[in-house]
Amino acid sequence: MTLKNILLRTIHQKNKFVNVAATAVKLTNQEQYEYKEQRRNDSNYRRIVGSALFSSVLVGTVFAEKSHKKGNKNKDGDTKVEAGERRPDLPTFRAEEVSKHDNEKSFWVTYKNGVYDVTSFLPSHPGGEQIMNAAGLSIEPFWNVYGMHKTQEVYALLESYRIGNLHEDDIVDHTDEELWVKEPSRDKRLIVKTNKPFNAEIPAKLQIAHFDTPNELFYVRQHMPVPDLDAGQHSVRVIIRDGSTRVKEFSLDKLEMFPKGSVRAALMCAGNRRSEMNEQVKPVKGISWQGGAISNALWEGVYLRDVLVYCGVDTANTVGKHVIFTGSDIDATGVNFSTSIPLDQALNPNGRILLATHMNGNPLPPDHGYPLRVIVPGAPAVRSVKWLESITISYDESPSHWHQKDYRSFNASKTWETADFATAPPIYSLPVTSAICDPADGDAVVAKDGVVEVRGYAYSGGGAKILRVDISPDCGKTWLQADELQCDDAPPQQHYAWTLWTARIPVAKGQKELELWAKATDSNFNTQPEKFDDIWNIRGVLSNAYHKIKVQIKH
Amino acid sequence: MTLKNILLRTIHQKNKFVNVAATAVKLTNQEQYEYKEQRRNDSNYRRIVGSALFSSVLVGTVFAEKSHKKGNKNKDGDTKVEAGERRPDLPTFRAEEVSKHDNEKSFWVTYKNGVYDVTSFLPSHPGGEQIMNAAGLSIEPFWNVYGMHKTQEVYALLESYRIGNLHEDDIVDHTDEELWVKEPSRDKRLIVKTNKPFNAEIPAKLQIAHFDTPNELFYVRQHMPVPDLDAGQHSVRVIIRDGSTRVKEFSLDKLEMFPKGSVRAALMCAGNRRSEMNEQVKPVKGISWQGGAISNALWEGVYLRDVLVYCGVDTANTVGKHVIFTGSDIDATGVNFSTSIPLDQALNPNGRILLATHMNGNPLPPDHGYPLRVIVPGAPAVRSVKWLESITISYDESPSHWHQKDYRSFNASKTWETADFATAPPIYSLPVTSAICDPADGDAVVAKDGVVEVRGYAYSGGGAKILRVDISPDCGKTWLQADELQCDDAPPQQHYAWTLWTARIPVAKGQKELELWAKATDSNFNTQPEKFDDIWNIRGVLSNAYHKIKVQIKH
Repeated sequence: MTLKNILLRTIHQKNKFVNVAATAVKLTNQEQYEYKEQRRNDSNYRRIVGSALFSSVLVGTVFAEKSHKKGNKNKDGDTKVEAGERRPDLPTFRAEEVSKHDNEKSFWVTYKNGVYDVTSFLPSHPGGEQIMNAAGLSIEPFWNVYGMHKTQEVYALLESYRIGNLHEDDIVDHTDEELWVKEPSRDKRLIVKTNKPFNAEIPAKLQIAHFDTPNELFYVRQHMPVPDLDAGQHSVRVIIRDGSTRVKEFSLDKLEMFPKGSVRAALMCAGNRRSEMNEQVKPVKGISWQGGAISNALWEGVYLRDVLVYCGVDTANTVGKHVIFTGSDIDATGVNFSTSIPLDQALNPNGRILLATHMNGNPLPPDHGYPLRVIVPGAPAVRSVKWLESITISYDESPSHWHQKDYRSFNASKTWETADFATAPPIYSLPVTSAICDPADGDAVVAKDGVVEVRGYAYSGGGAKILRVDISPDCGKTWLQADELQCDDAPPQQHYAWTLWTARIPVAKGQKELELWAKATDSNFNTQPEKFDDIWNIRGVLSNAYHKIKVQIKH
Repeated sequence: MTLKNILLRTIHQKNKFVNVAATAVKLTNQEQYEYKEQRRNDSNYRRIVGSALFSSVLVGTVFAEKSHKKGNKNKDGDTKVEAGERRPDLPTFRAEEVSKHDNEKSFWVTYKNGVYDVTSFLPSHPGGEQIMNAAGLSIEPFWNVYGMHKTQEVYALLESYRIGNLHEDDIVDHTDEELWVKEPSRDKRLIVKTNKPFNAEIPAKLQIAHFDTPNELFYVRQHMPVPDLDAGQHSVRVIIRDGSTRVKEFSLDKLEMFPKGSVRAALMCAGNRRSEMNEQVKPVKGISWQGGAISNALWEGVYLRDVLVYCGVDTANTVGKHVIFTGSDIDATGVNFSTSIPLDQALNPNGRILLATHMNGNPLPPDHGYPLRVIVPGAPAVRSVKWLESITISYDESPSHWHQKDYRSFNASKTWETADFATAPPIYSLPVTSAICDPADGDAVVAKDGVVEVRGYAYSGGGAKILRVDISPDCGKTWLQADELQCDDAPPQQHYAWTLWTARIPVAKGQKELELWAKATDSNFNTQPEKFDDIWNIRGVLSNAYHKIKVQIKH
């Protein structure tokens, strides 16, 4: 069964009861596009399913972390919970009956044979109201896309709400393997954070082994299964909505009409180094990245600006307009991944924003957006939408939950209850950061001629150049300037690549331990905060305090 | 006697013995220009006098600070030193004899009737080798321009090196009043840091009273006396040096051929808030600014970019080129103030760099560059050269000492001995900062309905927008977001104006004291460091840690 069919089945399951629209079983790409457009314009549908799976990711990772901390002791142990098995002691319900319990006063879901009344759980749902997507339905399609739910803790929690069995005529096979069979094979050296969707970082010592990260070692951040696309069939639509709507469509061949463009740029997840914030202050929600959610590459394709100008975008009237990028990756409710950037940022010639087909001289790998992705240098990587299928100029930011309910920042005192995503500005650029990659925390290192060599990366968003990396070997009492900075030769204000650095730290004879602090200074002379305390935030993004490690010294 | 004549006399005094060039007594502007060009190209002359007065400023302010800390108790007291009075007990020297002691092995200077052997003082001179400018000469012309030398401490120090009297036939009247008679009158509300040259900050509570600072309250930073210029006679030369040299000259009338341009921009001294770094870590060299070395204005004129393009500057070949701005203000050795920025920065349309004739709707006041100055938004104010007389496109940065030996940054461990100005990158953009302006540290404030209102400014260089200001009323335990941000409506990445903010801080009944911390976050999501310790630097620039004050509460 193809991903499209699974999607359609999910939509069908939804529509079967909420009666939003009839669903054709076989849709062409065009039909599917129009169908989705129609649904996007249906505010009722948007209200119901628009929340998408942002919160599911949160739930998943929170539970994944808990599970990780407990060492997965239940994984194959004797306390294993088999959720959704038939329970002869409980009553049986038809799906139609379950579907009526679709509101906050009575909220039921199904899982395999089980029926669950999770009404009392709603206020505790870490992802808030997004759970409403599953109102009166099976949670399996959602959990299939967001496999991080599938832990013993969540199964046990679910079973505690069990009220009955689903009539066997209403049971649908929701096994998820089919969703993931098209996943590309990955390099075994990547450090996997979650498998479904696939999120993995590059090991620190490999990270600094190349200025341009080999494609197979580039960190991977997916929100959904990887779409299985054909470059020959793929096209991207440019949709201009400014009163009237105009659409232009470009096959990859047609895109070649534009001058070739390239940019050497690091991509970094807004949540890179989240684990330090997590450990040094208090828990945050999100994948617990170490420093490996940044890599560097040479991207080639055509400049977005050229395409937009060709399509007649008014370059003189940019205020209040946005460029929405939509990918072919689809969540469990049938909504494509999307996010946006301000039009002014998109048109800035210094921005060097690319519609990229190539990465380090080769076609984009499937994990990095084959056959087409946008590269927004200097911005958090989430804006560099993969598997790009449309570019929409609009007076509104992307309505998606990835855009509206994530990748925004709050001060350290905001909680999930008090944080107002609607008024918090989206993150379109990244602050200065750095990390020590070699040695690693806890390593035993050899001092040669009384010197320990330390290597790492530094990066700043928005085109800022790294001017200096300073290392303290004594908790801030003294600072030594890294004597080698490796950066590219980009023009001023277009320093989108990372900087690799080497520092040589003298150690005293007989010194057994060394604590190292790293901080970078960029061309706006911004520096990193010393501690995570005051930049802590509920989502653990922008985690750019000093990197601090301790190593043992062998003489 | 005009400033020009005083200048020429100083040059004459120099040349009388070192025989660099014959000095005409009456030079036209053109002759003076050519003469200066010739001297600039004479490497010997450059070696001797090129160091200019950067270090004199340092000396002056260091001593001024010492004087300040001792409460000026010697100012009119009985221990007053009269430097340079005739001493019958000492031998008499001719000026020609003094002039032979012009090297590190024997270094003499004169002051009024006094002759001084300061050879042993050379290594201790806070400004280093720049003292060599006065080798074998009177120090009076230098001190006249840098009046901060004129403290009892410096006079006493000087007299301790006394070895004789200068022959009365060789004594020249170097009284300085004539240098300063053309200084403009200033608003009495400004807080004067030094009088000659005039440096004054705006009081904090007036600072936030207007979004655009009234011209008469705009902080003033001068390096030299204010030139007395005539808008009708003034012109600016554009000099392109790229193999051949091409020169175009523009009167102010001729500049009107370009489209009108404007930019609303704050100007901030790179040393703003230096006093906090000074007090909270350890002494730095420089004027001890509080937070009042930043003000905001609407500047009008023409865009530098338009002028450069008109003059045929190659906009496609900018790498490694610089734009040198030269003002009409002249140091004691006859060198004009100058500094430079990279050509790429000068040509960036988002940079909105202006050749400004107007400030808040009126012609520039003399203190702010009448009749023409450059405005480099987002950069430290030193790059916004006043009294602009030439713009030079060159493969070299400005050779001036203001450019080469100042306005660069170092890590906290660099000393005047280890800091290498030649390899340290110049400061072309400013990091995010903020300050609480009302209440002031130590104020007693009234809590209305259990709330204390706090107001201040925030600013970030390079066009970054201020997105958030957070205030902590409990040393970082909790943070409250300022609920009012007043900023202009500039397009993205062109936020050159400051942001004024208001926060409302709840206080407990009976609470008597309140410590407040302020920090801002900009659109690159950079934030301020908490403490000054790790950003401390020898020059006290980029002093952008949290602003912290304590106030008393009246209920």
